[in-house]
Amino acid sequence: MNVIKYPTQEDWLEIIKRPAIDTRELSERVAAIITEVRSDGDGALRRLSQKYDGAELKEPLVSEEEFAEADANVSQELKTALEVAKSNIEKFHALEIREPQMIETTPGVLCWRRSLPIQKVGLYIPAGSAPLFSTVLMLAIPATLAGCSEIIMCSPAGEDGKVNAATLYTAKLCGVTRVFKVGGAQAIAAMAYGTETVPSVYKIFGPGNQYVTEAKLQVMRDGIAIDMPAGPSEVAVLADDTCEPAFVAADLLSQAEHGPDSQVLLLSNSETVIDEVLTEIERQSELLPRRDIASAALRNSTAILVSSLDEGVDLLNEYAAEHLILAVNNAEAVADSIVNAGSIFLGNYSCESAGDYASGTNHTLPTNGAARAFSGVSTASFMKTITYQQLSEDGIRNLAPVIETMAAAEGLEAHRNAVAIRREYIG
Amino acid sequence: MNVIKYPTQEDWLEIIKRPAIDTRELSERVAAIITEVRSDGDGALRRLSQKYDGAELKEPLVSEEEFAEADANVSQELKTALEVAKSNIEKFHALEIREPQMIETTPGVLCWRRSLPIQKVGLYIPAGSAPLFSTVLMLAIPATLAGCSEIIMCSPAGEDGKVNAATLYTAKLCGVTRVFKVGGAQAIAAMAYGTETVPSVYKIFGPGNQYVTEAKLQVMRDGIAIDMPAGPSEVAVLADDTCEPAFVAADLLSQAEHGPDSQVLLLSNSETVIDEVLTEIERQSELLPRRDIASAALRNSTAILVSSLDEGVDLLNEYAAEHLILAVNNAEAVADSIVNAGSIFLGNYSCESAGDYASGTNHTLPTNGAARAFSGVSTASFMKTITYQQLSEDGIRNLAPVIETMAAAEGLEAHRNAVAIRREYIG
Repeated sequence: MNVIKYPTQEDWLEIIKRPAIDTRELSERVAAIITEVRSDGDGALRRLSQKYDGAELKEPLVSEEEFAEADANVSQELKTALEVAKSNIEKFHALEIREPQMIETTPGVLCWRRSLPIQKVGLYIPAGSAPLFSTVLMLAIPATLAGCSEIIMCSPAGEDGKVNAATLYTAKLCGVTRVFKVGGAQAIAAMAYGTETVPSVYKIFGPGNQYVTEAKLQVMRDGIAIDMPAGPSEVAVLADDTCEPAFVAADLLSQAEHGPDSQVLLLSNSETVIDEVLTEIERQSELLPRRDIASAALRNSTAILVSSLDEGVDLLNEYAAEHLILAVNNAEAVADSIVNAGSIFLGNYSCESAGDYASGTNHTLPTNGAARAFSGVSTASFMKTITYQQLSEDGIRNLAPVIETMAAAEGLEAHRNAVAIRREYIG
Repeated sequence: MNVIKYPTQEDWLEIIKRPAIDTRELSERVAAIITEVRSDGDGALRRLSQKYDGAELKEPLVSEEEFAEADANVSQELKTALEVAKSNIEKFHALEIREPQMIETTPGVLCWRRSLPIQKVGLYIPAGSAPLFSTVLMLAIPATLAGCSEIIMCSPAGEDGKVNAATLYTAKLCGVTRVFKVGGAQAIAAMAYGTETVPSVYKIFGPGNQYVTEAKLQVMRDGIAIDMPAGPSEVAVLADDTCEPAFVAADLLSQAEHGPDSQVLLLSNSETVIDEVLTEIERQSELLPRRDIASAALRNSTAILVSSLDEGVDLLNEYAAEHLILAVNNAEAVADSIVNAGSIFLGNYSCESAGDYASGTNHTLPTNGAARAFSGVSTASFMKTITYQQLSEDGIRNLAPVIETMAAAEGLEAHRNAVAIRREYIG
């Protein structure tokens, strides 16, 4: 890690800057994939799966036999763990379900709002270097709680033509309707526009590589909703001398092992803490199977010695970390002063892994500073809200002067007339 | 209007299809504008305002003198109307403000969520053929309720170099921090990236023409959030023989006068109703100052005779109208069966104009079928949610086996270790 001591506020912009990704060439390749899927459907999925995943795709839909096989291949220990995680995630995500809200804004004018499930949603689960069955929990549980009637999932098959067993088991456990063995930009295109076997959906969720992210941005132009723009995962830790340096090091490494492009930021008001954390990172990383990935990520990462925790908080509010660990005294008060972050972990025992898997919060979170304006995935992400209004004769009588004045001032005579004709009818 | 009688379900796809817009050429022109603003800031804004709005832009920021002049130029009648509308919109939008939600998902594992204002937001208010001060109400009121600390607004100046007086008056009334006399794609670029005088914001709201919409989609790629993709405005009316054909005609015309690309759809199970509405449209449109615009819109619009109201509901759920008027008997029951719409107007007295101006609901709504997955603008649109978790020693003890099992199964050893090291420390 690079160590920066007492940066000035002018240096912050450089510190919070994430590496830029040039998407121009990528953009054309993804556009070509989308065009191919739109014009040739399942045929295109077969060709592209062969080309990119090395998988021969006979039948994209995962069969009941494959689910049964997956069930047999998942250990009882993992099944039990998944049950606990599912229960915690359900408890937390169920808090969001709300009754309709109604108010009479003016006598005779009733307004209300109601949240309804998005009927058809698509979940993308990457395979890559680690099977991400935990992401199935994080997407399928809120989709089911929201009441989505069609929850499809795409995940690339390996060279053996199969989707990871734990991924399939978790999909079944959490109410996914159908799973398709398709990955990459072609999966996003299939869910956006439909093929002979893959149905089109209204909103697409899930992480993925640059191709997947670019495809999500491209299909958005055709009115398909997406969960959020996604970039490399990141963690920031604010630590003071009440932290356990070994814990902080473990947390930084757990983020760094995601990929060489992971972002890791350590802020402390104590040089000793920074030194001890760096020493612990050296020690612990020796023991990690993914130490090469973690080392690559850490080479691009930064430890910052700040003059005070308050200054650290200011910098963190500019940075807007996806995950923010507060390994400080009185973490509750510090958390209250954070206004930009995806998810916050308070105190020495709240490691990011807890939220990644089983505390109950969602791990699909805004990266790359998007936490300034975006929220993580929640049950609300799988719903949309309709507003309603009902005016009685009294309502028209009371509001007509207001509406007619405003419509006339906007020069919209037909808008004014729609009220005037009713007002005159009532008399 | 085109009249279609008893279409089969196969015809629906054609009926619900909105006109496609080819954005390729547009896309390059908008990209060039964005590049110019990013590299030359205020200088670019001056050149582009001259070029596109014919306005000489000396100082982009609207001054206190200009606000005072606007105040003097708005009638007391309009000011009173704006106060009533503001009060209704505030009442409805305040319903959304929520206390943080907290739950102990497992003993020792506390999870909660808190909604916080997006600190900096930008509102775009087009000028064009009608001054849209009502949109200022619809964006600035929820922004202020949400608690956004910086609420800037861009609106193009006319050839006299001034922004519409009612627009400025409403901005001041509703808590807009600063107004800039900039329009079009250049305004979106300025709010996304900042210039010498226009600050950059985290989320951009507001309607606009194709240039504005395209610019919003392009800046989204740099992590700027936008309210929603926007298309031409639209209304669908479901009417049975309890409707007042003159009211329905007035509602269709009020939508049609927005622009020649407005979408209007009438569904009825009664041929008589359709005939009477069409006759009324002829009669009423003669009296409208914007009748040419309305006629153009109606030429592309459709009246559909359906075999039953149930069938009408099914078609409307496929269509997902921005505005949906239910001029039918027992509108409440019918409204309950609608799952896709932006805002619903129940019964003969609930005209779209009411929601456009003053009932209390928001008029910034998803168009072009986006209501299948998007909600209209609300107070929540100006907020984002942070999730939190705090584990005690007990929490680690209770959850460690679950997290370690799952992390190991995903092959993420550093994730497992972050929990194991704490578990071992506690002993």
